[in-house]
Amino acid sequence: MAEMASKNLTSAAVFFLLLLLDWSATPTLARVRDRHRPCKRMVFYFHDILYNGHNAKNATAAIVGAPAWGNTTILASQNHFGNVVVFDDPITLDNNLHSPAVGRAQGFYLYDKKDVFTAWLGFSFVFNSTEHKGSINFAGADPLMNKTRDISVIGGTGEFFMARGVATLTTDAFEGEVYFRLRADIKLYECW
Amino acid sequence: MAEMASKNLTSAAVFFLLLLLDWSATPTLARVRDRHRPCKRMVFYFHDILYNGHNAKNATAAIVGAPAWGNTTILASQNHFGNVVVFDDPITLDNNLHSPAVGRAQGFYLYDKKDVFTAWLGFSFVFNSTEHKGSINFAGADPLMNKTRDISVIGGTGEFFMARGVATLTTDAFEGEVYFRLRADIKLYECW
Amino acid sequence: MAEMASKNLTSAAVFFLLLLLDWSATPTLARVRDRHRPCKRMVFYFHDILYNGHNAKNATAAIVGAPAWGNTTILASQNHFGNVVVFDDPITLDNNLHSPAVGRAQGFYLYDKKDVFTAWLGFSFVFNSTEHKGSINFAGADPLMNKTRDISVIGGTGEFFMARGVATLTTDAFEGEVYFRLRADIKLYECW
Repeated sequence: MAEMASKNLTSAAVFFLLLLLDWSATPTLARVRDRHRPCKRMVFYFHDILYNGHNAKNATAAIVGAPAWGNTTILASQNHFGNVVVFDDPITLDNNLHSPAVGRAQGFYLYDKKDVFTAWLGFSFVFNSTEHKGSINFAGADPLMNKTRDISVIGGTGEFFMARGVATLTTDAFEGEVYFRLRADIKLYECW
Repeated sequence: MAEMASKNLTSAAVFFLLLLLDWSATPTLARVRDRHRPCKRMVFYFHDILYNGHNAKNATAAIVGAPAWGNTTILASQNHFGNVVVFDDPITLDNNLHSPAVGRAQGFYLYDKKDVFTAWLGFSFVFNSTEHKGSINFAGADPLMNKTRDISVIGGTGEFFMARGVATLTTDAFEGEVYFRLRADIKLYECW
Repeated sequence: MAEMASKNLTSAAVFFLLLLLDWSATPTLARVRDRHRPCKRMVFYFHDILYNGHNAKNATAAIVGAPAWGNTTILASQNHFGNVVVFDDPITLDNNLHSPAVGRAQGFYLYDKKDVFTAWLGFSFVFNSTEHKGSINFAGADPLMNKTRDISVIGGTGEFFMARGVATLTTDAFEGEVYFRLRADIKLYECW
């Protein structure tokens, strides 16, 4: 009697075991999610030089949209509310503008608050080097007067296939209305 | 014999048990996904007052892009096709523009169809109160003549860390080309 | 003694079994993720006819943003850097512009590199036919001189509820600065 029960149990146990093995053998099984441990973390800097009518050669960004009271050469009053800027900024590993670029930050930001500097970002980090091949896509609000602020990693391609996560931005430098440098601390919580 | 099998089985069972316990003990384990039960649901209203040349003080939004046949003070013909609008709209808990704002809806919309009012949205809900701290990021098509339409929650930060879901939009009021109010029924299906 | 152990084990096994059954019975359980097998794959073409001052009737797209050195009728120099284009393009199943449209591609692209054609895209595929009902939302960098390039599927609604994935874009035709046709090979890796 006990033996029969044991046999049944053995079958059941073997079934569970196979099931679990099969499950864990799947090549790209989603990792268990843990908000305290990113599956990938990287820090980069990117450098934005805004076209102001006199720096066509060096500019990496240009105003392309403005409200009725503005134009596309000078950032508008009221904390630049309504200005849309397109950019193609070099990405570096340290905070030196002249360090070799390891990729490009490409997309747009727009200023969207009248009474304090605040922006909304939609852009990608595009890599095509021996270090990194692929892109990381970002979107989110950037209340840029805060010391740090988080935006979303909404997807990725290549090496960053299907990535999701958060990037913590810090303004590392801000020089007049022409140059700023952001530090991006990218934490991915979904890696494939 | 039966006893030995039982012992092995006990080991196996304990192993499974530990495995399952370990799994369920992970602090931020992904919940089982269920499209019929959001893990979080919230309803908000947001209020858009478009700058029209005469309402600089109250306006929460401004036209910043227009097609060749338009300008940035008056919405263009052909259902405003090509107009890009940047906004910083108050979010309220009820449908009263004068209720205390619990956050700001910040980003842009653009009209993208000639023969019917249709928009595309990229924006965030930004909260910084005792109620909510964090942001929810949205993107998607808004065929605004439909009674309800869904856009995507593409990410979140702070309290809404890594959120994904859907927001069902309803036009709750529409007054000329200056004021509209949207009801957003936010349903998150991935909560961390 | 052995019998008692067996009984306990039976209980434990039944518990595991129920747990696993319950789990697999959940109606919309996340599929196991596999980067080699999309859970859904679809190929579409979409057709962009850019307004150039002479084609108001046929145009499906219009320049709505330009840098200081450009305008909204003619694409700017320097690889159109800074031009923002809003579009409402027909989607077809084959590469024929005159085939019946099965949906609309709606949103924007912007050119964001001075020394080579490169764009950034934010748009949706909107379907409302017997074949497909719902929308797919996309974002990402489009280095359009590459034969193929990947952008992210960042969300979906209706039939494509909560979708995530990658779309591989190919330029299928390019005629002057007025017409281009993209092939989109959409691979979803998260289906609900």
